[in-house]
Amino acid sequence: MIPDSLTQAQFDTVYNSLSLVIASQLFTAIFLILALPRVLPRYRQAMVIAAVVCGIAAYHYFRIFDSFKGAFVTDAVGGRGTYTQAEGVSFNEGYRYVDWLLTVPLLLVELIAVLALARRVQASLLRKLIPAATLMIVLGYPGEISSTDGARVLWGVLSTIPFLFILYVLFVELTRSLDRQPVAVRALISRLRILLLASWLVYPLAYALPVLGISGADAWVLKQGGYSLADIAAKAVYALIIYRIARLKSYEDDP
Amino acid sequence: MIPDSLTQAQFDTVYNSLSLVIASQLFTAIFLILALPRVLPRYRQAMVIAAVVCGIAAYHYFRIFDSFKGAFVTDAVGGRGTYTQAEGVSFNEGYRYVDWLLTVPLLLVELIAVLALARRVQASLLRKLIPAATLMIVLGYPGEISSTDGARVLWGVLSTIPFLFILYVLFVELTRSLDRQPVAVRALISRLRILLLASWLVYPLAYALPVLGISGADAWVLKQGGYSLADIAAKAVYALIIYRIARLKSYEDDP
Amino acid sequence: MIPDSLTQAQFDTVYNSLSLVIASQLFTAIFLILALPRVLPRYRQAMVIAAVVCGIAAYHYFRIFDSFKGAFVTDAVGGRGTYTQAEGVSFNEGYRYVDWLLTVPLLLVELIAVLALARRVQASLLRKLIPAATLMIVLGYPGEISSTDGARVLWGVLSTIPFLFILYVLFVELTRSLDRQPVAVRALISRLRILLLASWLVYPLAYALPVLGISGADAWVLKQGGYSLADIAAKAVYALIIYRIARLKSYEDDP
Amino acid sequence: MIPDSLTQAQFDTVYNSLSLVIASQLFTAIFLILALPRVLPRYRQAMVIAAVVCGIAAYHYFRIFDSFKGAFVTDAVGGRGTYTQAEGVSFNEGYRYVDWLLTVPLLLVELIAVLALARRVQASLLRKLIPAATLMIVLGYPGEISSTDGARVLWGVLSTIPFLFILYVLFVELTRSLDRQPVAVRALISRLRILLLASWLVYPLAYALPVLGISGADAWVLKQGGYSLADIAAKAVYALIIYRIARLKSYEDDP
Amino acid sequence: MIPDSLTQAQFDTVYNSLSLVIASQLFTAIFLILALPRVLPRYRQAMVIAAVVCGIAAYHYFRIFDSFKGAFVTDAVGGRGTYTQAEGVSFNEGYRYVDWLLTVPLLLVELIAVLALARRVQASLLRKLIPAATLMIVLGYPGEISSTDGARVLWGVLSTIPFLFILYVLFVELTRSLDRQPVAVRALISRLRILLLASWLVYPLAYALPVLGISGADAWVLKQGGYSLADIAAKAVYALIIYRIARLKSYEDDP
Ligand SMILES: CC1=C(/C=C/C(C)=C/C=C/C(C)=C/C=O)C(C)(C)CCC1
Ligand SMILES: CC1=C(/C=C/C(C)=C/C=C/C(C)=C/C=O)C(C)(C)CCC1
Ligand SMILES: CC1=C(/C=C/C(C)=C/C=C/C(C)=C/C=O)C(C)(C)CCC1
Ligand SMILES: CC1=C(/C=C/C(C)=C/C=C/C(C)=C/C=O)C(C)(C)CCC1
Ligand SMILES: CC1=C(/C=C/C(C)=C/C=C/C(C)=C/C=O)C(C)(C)CCC1
Ligand code: NA
Ligand code: NA
Ligand code: NA
Ligand code: NA
Ligand code: NA
Ligand code: NA
Ligand code: NA
Ligand code: NA
Ligand code: NA
Ligand code: NA
Repeated sequence: MIPDSLTQAQFDTVYNSLSLVIASQLFTAIFLILALPRVLPRYRQAMVIAAVVCGIAAYHYFRIFDSFKGAFVTDAVGGRGTYTQAEGVSFNEGYRYVDWLLTVPLLLVELIAVLALARRVQASLLRKLIPAATLMIVLGYPGEISSTDGARVLWGVLSTIPFLFILYVLFVELTRSLDRQPVAVRALISRLRILLLASWLVYPLAYALPVLGISGADAWVLKQGGYSLADIAAKAVYALIIYRIARLKSYEDDP
Repeated sequence: MIPDSLTQAQFDTVYNSLSLVIASQLFTAIFLILALPRVLPRYRQAMVIAAVVCGIAAYHYFRIFDSFKGAFVTDAVGGRGTYTQAEGVSFNEGYRYVDWLLTVPLLLVELIAVLALARRVQASLLRKLIPAATLMIVLGYPGEISSTDGARVLWGVLSTIPFLFILYVLFVELTRSLDRQPVAVRALISRLRILLLASWLVYPLAYALPVLGISGADAWVLKQGGYSLADIAAKAVYALIIYRIARLKSYEDDP
Repeated sequence: MIPDSLTQAQFDTVYNSLSLVIASQLFTAIFLILALPRVLPRYRQAMVIAAVVCGIAAYHYFRIFDSFKGAFVTDAVGGRGTYTQAEGVSFNEGYRYVDWLLTVPLLLVELIAVLALARRVQASLLRKLIPAATLMIVLGYPGEISSTDGARVLWGVLSTIPFLFILYVLFVELTRSLDRQPVAVRALISRLRILLLASWLVYPLAYALPVLGISGADAWVLKQGGYSLADIAAKAVYALIIYRIARLKSYEDDP
Repeated sequence: MIPDSLTQAQFDTVYNSLSLVIASQLFTAIFLILALPRVLPRYRQAMVIAAVVCGIAAYHYFRIFDSFKGAFVTDAVGGRGTYTQAEGVSFNEGYRYVDWLLTVPLLLVELIAVLALARRVQASLLRKLIPAATLMIVLGYPGEISSTDGARVLWGVLSTIPFLFILYVLFVELTRSLDRQPVAVRALISRLRILLLASWLVYPLAYALPVLGISGADAWVLKQGGYSLADIAAKAVYALIIYRIARLKSYEDDP
Repeated sequence: MIPDSLTQAQFDTVYNSLSLVIASQLFTAIFLILALPRVLPRYRQAMVIAAVVCGIAAYHYFRIFDSFKGAFVTDAVGGRGTYTQAEGVSFNEGYRYVDWLLTVPLLLVELIAVLALARRVQASLLRKLIPAATLMIVLGYPGEISSTDGARVLWGVLSTIPFLFILYVLFVELTRSLDRQPVAVRALISRLRILLLASWLVYPLAYALPVLGISGADAWVLKQGGYSLADIAAKAVYALIIYRIARLKSYEDDP
C-alpha cells in the first residue's frame, strides 16, 4: 500500500503531520508531568499514565518520522521533485501496532483511574477492558500484514468483536457507575467518550481502505494525516480532558 | 522564495540566528521550570504553559536548523564559498505553521492564565481568543504555499480578520477586566501587549514580502533573521514578562 | 548462529520486537520514577532499583537495536528484499551478558527490598543471592562464545548450579520469612516468583538451542523474539508487580 | 585567522580543550540544580541563572566541538597526520558572540542577584550593567568579522568603553553597597571580582591578536585553549563561588 | 601504543567493556540522584558530588566509545575479520586525562564531605588533597604523551610524589579524625580506602606498561579492560559505599 512515489507537496504534508504529532505528544507529556502537583494525589495515577502514553507515542512517532525520511528520496535540487522509495530502507508501519499494543489498554486504564470509583468496580471494569483491548490489536495485526482481501476482512471482523465489547462496557456498563460523579464531571466524561469513539473509529476505517479499493498516493497521504490527527485526539487531547476531570474532581473533593 | 545561493556571510548569519533561537527558547523553558516554586500555585499554570511553548519552539528550531544545514551546501575548502541548494533536501518552512498552530493559541492562554481573572471572565475570553488564533493560522497557510499573488493576498486578508479580532479582544475587552489588578501589574500587562503587537506584526509582514516584490537572497536572510528575533520576543521575552507578573502578583497576594 | 540472511518479514519482526522492548523498558522506568511518591519511603528503594534496572535494559536495547539495524542490509527498493549481513558491522550479542551482569543481581535486590524484612534476614538472603546471580552469568559467558558443543554444555551445567541455588533460596528459604507479610502480599509474591521462574527459564533454553541442533534464520528470529518477551516479563512486568506490592504494603502500614 | 592545517598534537589539544569545557559547563549546571535546595529561597534565583548560563555554554560548546571535528580532516591512518580544512564545512567562531550575547548580561545578573541588595539598589545597578554588557558584545562583533585592522581597532575601542564602565560599576559603585554584607561574604565577592576581571580580560586580548600580528596555527591553538580556560573560569568556577556565597549567606540568615 | 589491528574477539571485548562502563556510571548517577531524599541533608553534598562524578565519567566514556568504534574498522562480512585502524580517525586516549582532571579531586571531596567533620578539619584536609590530586594528573600527562621512556619515567616519578602524599593524608592524617565516627562507619571507611588504593594503583600500572616493554594488541586490550574495571570501582562502586555511609550516618543521627 506504500506508494511508489510522492510529489513534494505530498511528501511535505506527511513530513509536517508526523512532526506535528511528535511535538504534540512530547509536550503534552511534559505538560502533564509539570501539572501533576495541581491535582490531588488520588488523581495523579491517571495523569502519570496519560503522560506515559503520550511519551510512548512521541517515541514511536520519532521512529516513524525517521523511517519516513529515509524511505522516500529524491535527487532534485532543493528537494523540488518526485520522491521515490529508497533502496534498502522501508517505511515501517508495524510501529503503529507496537504502539497500540502498549497504549490502547493504558488509555482505558487512564479513563477508569481518573474516576476514582470503588476499588471493586474499578477492578471489574479493567478485567474486561484490558484483555479486550489487547485482543483487538492482536487480532487486527495478521490482517494488516496479510496480502489478500479475504484475510484482511476475516481478521478485521474478529478484531471488531472486542472493539464493540469495549464500546459496550464504556457506554453502557460504565454509565451505571457514574451517578456518584459530580454533574460537571459527567459532562466531561461524555465529551471524553465521544472523542474516544470518534478518534478510535479512524483506525478500523484506515484498515478497511484497501478492501474498499481505495489506494494510491493521495489515499496513502490522507491515511497518514488521518492517523496523525486521530493519534493527537486519542492521546493528547484525551489526556488534557483527563487532566480537566482531575482538576475538577480535586476541587470538588477539597474546595 | 528560497534563494538559489547564499554567500558564506549570509549562510553564517542565518545559521547563527537559528542557533540563537534554539538556545534562547530551550533555556528559557528550563529557567521557567526551575523558577516554578518561586510563584504561588495559582500562577504556575501560566508558567508551565510558557515553558511548554518555549520547549515546542526549541524543538521546531532544532528541526529548522538541521533542515537549513542540509539544504545549503558548498564544496569550498573551509566553507569559504558560495552555498547552493543541495540535491534531495529541501528547506522546509512548513515547520513554522506547525509551530504556530500549537503555540499561538497557547501564548494567549498563558496571558489570560497569569491574570487569574474570575473563572467566568477567563472562560469567555478564551472562547474568543483560541478559535480566532487557530483560524488565523489555518487561513494563512494556503496563502503561504500558493504560488500566485492573488491567492496569497486573498488568504492573507481572510487571516487578518481573526488577527484584528484578537487585537480587539486584547486591547479593548481585556482592558475592562484589568481594574482589579494591582497598578504595577497593569503596567507590565501594557508592556506585554505592546511586545505582543510589535512581534506579531512581523509575521504578516514577512508573509507580504513576495507580494511587495521583495525577494532575493538578502530579503530572505532578513526574513529569517526577522522571524528569529520575533520568535524570541513573542515567546521567550514574553514568557519572562509573564514570570515577572506572576512574581509580582504572588508578592501582592502573600507579601 | 547469526543467520546469513533474513526475509523482510523476519527482519521486520526482529526490528519491531526490539523497538517494543525499548519502549516498554524506558517508559516503565519513567512510570516508576513518577510513581515514587505514591509509596511509603521504606518501599522506595525497591522502586528506584526497579527503575534503574529498566533504564539499563532500555539503554542496552537501544544499542542492540542500532547494532541490528546496521548488521543486516538490503539494496531492494523499499527494503522489500532479502537482508544479508553487512560488511564491517557485526550484530553484537555480547551486550546481553553485559546487561545481565548488571541487572540480574539487581532484580533479586529489588525483590528482597520490597519485602522490608528484618535487616538481618535481608542481609543474609542478599549475601546468597547476589554472588550466585553473578556467578551464574559469569559461568555462562564462556559457553556462549565457545564454538564447540562440549564447552557450551560444560559451562552451561556449571552456570545452572548457581541458578538452581537461586531458585532454592527464593522458593524455599524466602518462604519461611513470608509469614509476617499480609495475605494479599503473599499472593502477589507467589505470582512474582512464578513470573520470575517462567521468564528466567527462557535464557538457559535459548542458550541450549545450538546444542539441540536448532538453528537457521527462523530459530534465530524466534530466539530474538523470545529474549524480547522474556526481558519485558523479567524486568518491566516484574517491576510493575513490585510496585503493586509496594502500594499494598504502604496501604497496610498507613491505611 | 583559522589555520590551513594543524598537526595531530594541535588538533588533539583543541579537541580535548573543547571537550573539557563541555563536561565542565554541563556538570556544573547539573550540580547547581541538584544543590538548589541547599540554599535559602532568596538565593535560588542567582543559582538558577548560574545553572542556565552554564547550560547555554555547554550547548554552544557542543556545537563548537562538532563544528571543529567536521572542519579539520586528515586521511592519515589512525589520524596520525596533518589535519587540513575540510571541503564544505567551516569552523564557525560566530557561536561565541551568540553565546556572549546571552550569557554575559546574565553573569552580571547572577552576581547582583546573590547579594540580595535592596530592591531599588539592585534595579539601579542592573539598569546600568545589562545595557552596557549588551552594547559591549554588539560593538565588538563587527570588528571580529571585519577584515581590516582599522575596523577591528575602531570597533574594539568602542566596545571597550562599555567594558570599562562595567568594571567601574562593579569595582566602585557596587563596593558602596557591600557594607551590609557579612565579612566572609565580602571576601568572597572580592575574589569573585578578581576572577571576573582576570577571565574577562582574555576576550579583548584574543580579539587583539591579529592586530598585534600574532597569527599561525600555534597562536590559534593557544587562543582556543585560552577561550576554553576563560570560559570555565568566567562561568563554571564563577558559578561555584556564587554558590558558596549563597551558602554562606543562607547560613548567616538562618544559622 | 595503539595496536595496528585487533581480532574480532579483541574488538568485541573492548567494545563491551566500554559499554559496560557507560551503563554503570550513567545509572549509578541516576540512582544516586533518585536516592538523595533517603539521606539527611547534611550528607547530600557528598551524594550530589558522587552523582556528578559518575555523570562526567559516563559522558567521557560515551566519547571514548564513539572514538573507539570509529577508529577500528573491518570490511569483513558480519564484522568477522581483522579490525585495522581507520583512515582519518584516531582513538583519543587524552579524554582520560581530561576526565581525571575533573573527577579525581572530586572523588576526594566526596569522601571528606560524607564524613561531615568539623568545618576546620575538613577545610584543612581539602587544602591538601585537591592541589595534590590536580598536580598528580598534570604531572602525569606530559609523560603519557611523550615518546621516550626517559620522559615517561621522569614525569611518572614526579607524579607519584603527590600520589604518595594523598595516600599519606588519607591513611594517616584522616585516621586521626575518625575517632568520633560510629564503629560501623569506620569499618565502611576502611573498606572505601582499600577500594580506593586498589583501584587507583591500576592507573600508574597502566602508565608503566610501555616502560616495562609490555605492548601489543593483547596488552592494549587488557589495559582497556583494566581501565574500565578500575573506573567502575573507583567511581561507581565507590559512590555506592559513600551512599551506604551516608545512610548509616543518617540513621545514627536521626534513628
Ligand atoms: C476495530 C479494528 C481495529 C481497531 C483499532 C483501534 C480501535 C485502534 C486504536 C488505536 C488508538 C486509540 C491509538 C491511539 O493512539 C484494527 C486493529 C485496526 C483492525 C480492524 C478492526
Ligand atoms: C495576520 C496574518 C498572519 C499572522 C500570523 C501571526 C500573527 C503569527 C504569529 C506567530 C507567533 C506569535 C509566533 C510565535 O513564535 C499570517 C498567518 C502570517 C498570514 C497573513 C495574515
Ligand atoms: C542457567 C543458565 C543461564 C541462565 C541465565 C539467566 C537465568 C538469565 C537471566 C536473565 C534475566 C533475568 C534478564 C532480565 O532481563 C545462562 C547464563 C544462559 C547459561 C546457561 C545456564
Ligand atoms: C572589551 C572588548 C571585548 C570584550 C569581551 C568580553 C569582556 C567578553 C566576555 C565574555 C565572557 C565573560 C564569556 C563567558 O563565558 C570584545 C567583545 C572581545 C571586543 C573587543 C573589546
Ligand atoms: C601515580 C601516577 C599516576 C596516577 C594516576 C591516578 C592515581 C589516577 C586515578 C584515576 C582515577 C581514580 C580515575 C577514576 O575514574 C599517573 C597520572 C597515571 C602518572 C603516573 C604516576
Ligand atoms: Na528522504
Ligand atoms: Na499510534
Ligand atoms: Na550545509
Ligand atoms: Na515560530
Ligand atoms: Na539495515
Ligand atoms: Na537482557
Ligand atoms: Na575531523
Ligand atoms: Na563563550
Ligand atoms: Na568500527
Ligand atoms: Na577515567
